[in-house]
Amino acid sequence: MKILALAFPGLTLIDLVGPLQAFSFLPGFETQIVWQKKGPIRSDAGVTIEATHDFEDCWENPDILFVPGNTKALFAQLEDKKTIDFIADRGQRAQWVTSVCNGSLLLAAAGLLRGYKAASYWFTREHLALFGATPTDARWVIDRNRATGGGMTAGVDFGLAMVSHIVGVEHGRLVELIFEYAPQPPHGTGRPELADSTTLSKALEILPGHMAIERLPEIAKNMPGVP
Amino acid sequence: MKILALAFPGLTLIDLVGPLQAFSFLPGFETQIVWQKKGPIRSDAGVTIEATHDFEDCWENPDILFVPGNTKALFAQLEDKKTIDFIADRGQRAQWVTSVCNGSLLLAAAGLLRGYKAASYWFTREHLALFGATPTDARWVIDRNRATGGGMTAGVDFGLAMVSHIVGVEHGRLVELIFEYAPQPPHGTGRPELADSTTLSKALEILPGHMAIERLPEIAKNMPGVP
Repeated sequence: MKILALAFPGLTLIDLVGPLQAFSFLPGFETQIVWQKKGPIRSDAGVTIEATHDFEDCWENPDILFVPGNTKALFAQLEDKKTIDFIADRGQRAQWVTSVCNGSLLLAAAGLLRGYKAASYWFTREHLALFGATPTDARWVIDRNRATGGGMTAGVDFGLAMVSHIVGVEHGRLVELIFEYAPQPPHGTGRPELADSTTLSKALEILPGHMAIERLPEIAKNMPGVP
Repeated sequence: MKILALAFPGLTLIDLVGPLQAFSFLPGFETQIVWQKKGPIRSDAGVTIEATHDFEDCWENPDILFVPGNTKALFAQLEDKKTIDFIADRGQRAQWVTSVCNGSLLLAAAGLLRGYKAASYWFTREHLALFGATPTDARWVIDRNRATGGGMTAGVDFGLAMVSHIVGVEHGRLVELIFEYAPQPPHGTGRPELADSTTLSKALEILPGHMAIERLPEIAKNMPGVP
């Protein structure tokens, strides 16, 4: 399957790599990493990846369009008409339209989640409604041909679920064993409702400084995704 | 902290990215991605990453040396004296010597795990003993300044545990919430003892074809890690 994965400067690398590592077990796995221009892209994890294609020369009809997120860098993309138009175009042609973390805000802003249930990063989830999507707090959501994962590390669960959905549950079970995916979160604080109040307060102090959430209603007004 | 991360052609990308995404929350986070020569390195997940440094110009005394693994590509490195000598050298100078998945076999073959408890990929774990290490089936192991994670997806648990260990548990709790690390494995088959017999049989058919396990005793004979 042809996986067209968007990258952008500052992307959260695990958003991209969890799903792609799982997708590599799909039959005929091929990828194009696409950005406005080819070449190196610095991620948020101290690793530079290569955009192999640009918006002009990448697949027009991928099997899967995938979009990652990021706490800081997402907003530049939400306000970049070239990126949003590209996502809208490929999203209308792709068999599957997918994201992890707040990458779902990019899909939503491109009009691709109107009338769909979708997952997102816990801190941004509710804002999907601005773009006509129905936010859900599931670890992943598959609604018709839209498939979205929750925050960051949810990309592994999302990717394994997609492998099962597309190839069959027996293959999904096998990939999960090959992944040695028997997680043991060291602290048990991975969701707001699980975290102690000190941890949650700290996160709620830090994240708003990273994410220009307050700009979302204005962004929504100018986007094709507004209902 | 200065993180020196080895990359090599065909590496398992999530082995590298889980830990680095967590390490990015360490104070003064800086990375060098190092290989025998600078430039693009194709991973196993359809993403090309950039080696920013080579064995000659990278940090001599990193805070953390990190080594990923891979099912197929690992063995070329185990038998490459240049790689093993480099790992042995930097491992003796680094404050922390770390790996995820069967990257621990590379540390072991470089003599760095002799007398240490270590984790590894479930399929290769027991073979650590050939190099004088004590294999354990924990999701991650911290034994003095050696810290090793289990297979592939264990890099997230390992990375969060390291952040707690180095900075403090309050910071670890916060990063786990920012990671939204509340995993929901879709199938519950992520360890041999959890998997149904059909799934386990399939894995045991596939993996030996990928991994030249039978060469390990011979490799061990010629390596500085032999007790």
